[in-house]
Amino acid sequence: MNAAPGRLILIGCGPGAADLLTLRAIRRIAEADVILRDRLVDEDVLAFASPAATVAYVGKAPGDGGVQQATIDATIRAALLEGKTVARLKSGDPMVFGRASEEIAAAVSAGAKVEIVPGVTSALAAAADAAIAVTERAEIQTFAVVTARAADADATPDWVSRMRPGVCLAFYMGVREAWKIQSTLMAAGVPADAPADWVENAGRPDVRTVPTSLGRLSLDARQNRIANPAILFVRYPLSLSSRAGEIPAAVNR
Amino acid sequence: MNAAPGRLILIGCGPGAADLLTLRAIRRIAEADVILRDRLVDEDVLAFASPAATVAYVGKAPGDGGVQQATIDATIRAALLEGKTVARLKSGDPMVFGRASEEIAAAVSAGAKVEIVPGVTSALAAAADAAIAVTERAEIQTFAVVTARAADADATPDWVSRMRPGVCLAFYMGVREAWKIQSTLMAAGVPADAPADWVENAGRPDVRTVPTSLGRLSLDARQNRIANPAILFVRYPLSLSSRAGEIPAAVNR
Repeated sequence: MNAAPGRLILIGCGPGAADLLTLRAIRRIAEADVILRDRLVDEDVLAFASPAATVAYVGKAPGDGGVQQATIDATIRAALLEGKTVARLKSGDPMVFGRASEEIAAAVSAGAKVEIVPGVTSALAAAADAAIAVTERAEIQTFAVVTARAADADATPDWVSRMRPGVCLAFYMGVREAWKIQSTLMAAGVPADAPADWVENAGRPDVRTVPTSLGRLSLDARQNRIANPAILFVRYPLSLSSRAGEIPAAVNR
Repeated sequence: MNAAPGRLILIGCGPGAADLLTLRAIRRIAEADVILRDRLVDEDVLAFASPAATVAYVGKAPGDGGVQQATIDATIRAALLEGKTVARLKSGDPMVFGRASEEIAAAVSAGAKVEIVPGVTSALAAAADAAIAVTERAEIQTFAVVTARAADADATPDWVSRMRPGVCLAFYMGVREAWKIQSTLMAAGVPADAPADWVENAGRPDVRTVPTSLGRLSLDARQNRIANPAILFVRYPLSLSSRAGEIPAAVNR
């Protein structure tokens, strides 16, 4: 009666354009008995699924509460205990802000095998759309992805301490925190003319890019009505650092 | 007589396994008149090229000097001025340690259009192979990719200041610098039992993963003969930070 435990495949589906799927992702989607899809995963990717597969939407939309992570974990575990091959379709890459550890733990507790298929992470799709090199010889040596929200809303966000000359920060879903990002980094001494860019709907046909600067990024988000899913880049090139601390009026001399 | 300027397509080919190409990358490779290929790009991807395309290898192997960047830029420019569609095949993602800015500048100076196709960056392929979540709720909020080498060999590397509780660092090509990474981070107060992982040949059938720790990563690289291309992860979970500064003997209580 007891089936051998199944297999969990965490699949990075890229930022939401079906043509940014990898060949490996397509093959693994075709092998699945059960497919659990996130909110930002393009519906077109389901064209690669077996007609016999069960497909469920388990996305969490902002504010709707959505399907709780514990429910997703339990669904994965139940299907694996029935011996199913479960494809968990994640937007971007599964290991970046993907709650992967919890789902892997659910599979391990069911005695199932786990495979992870990497994907194009949303920040790099955004960098491609905006033609931004997130590392640049002699200017940017470190590329860091961060969440805009701190666990404690009043605490100084941890990304402030990450921002130094030579760093490019990519904020996922930063629209609501735009003013906090701008004001906190400026207060920490990052120059107002540090280049910044908003990228809405990275990787998709309806992508919008808005080049801005640290000193204008909040205003430009409002004026351009930038909405999530959006990536915000803030870059601090080494050549700007010698000017940090000067008054803004002196910047354009 | 003068052709309209061509088009440069920087294509992320992933970490070197042909099945980690995206559908978009495959389509763009097929459209190219001229294909310039990096060292770590799998030869199998050339199966997607037009039979009429010209293919050139422009890789730089460690120590051989290789094809200089200025020569690559000039080759790109010349082909674009002839009106060609040039596909520049990059390992990983083109915007991460890819010298993209220089090649984009060459195209812009030729009056050509530029398209960038994002790819699976090597660090995320490595994270998938080693089953490491590079961000983790309540433990790791920042994921940063860094080069192991500082421009000035004697200077304190800039990545030391990036390492704080809550950060996962991914070092590209860090084998030679293993001891420097280990000793410098330990001297900066990162606990010796901070988890670390070597991933050699990420994304490929011959991938090897070696789980280790900050205090053993140099020894484990030698004992396992880890060779580049390799990614080294060092993670500093928040739950470890309360223990920083304790003597190692106290860790296992």
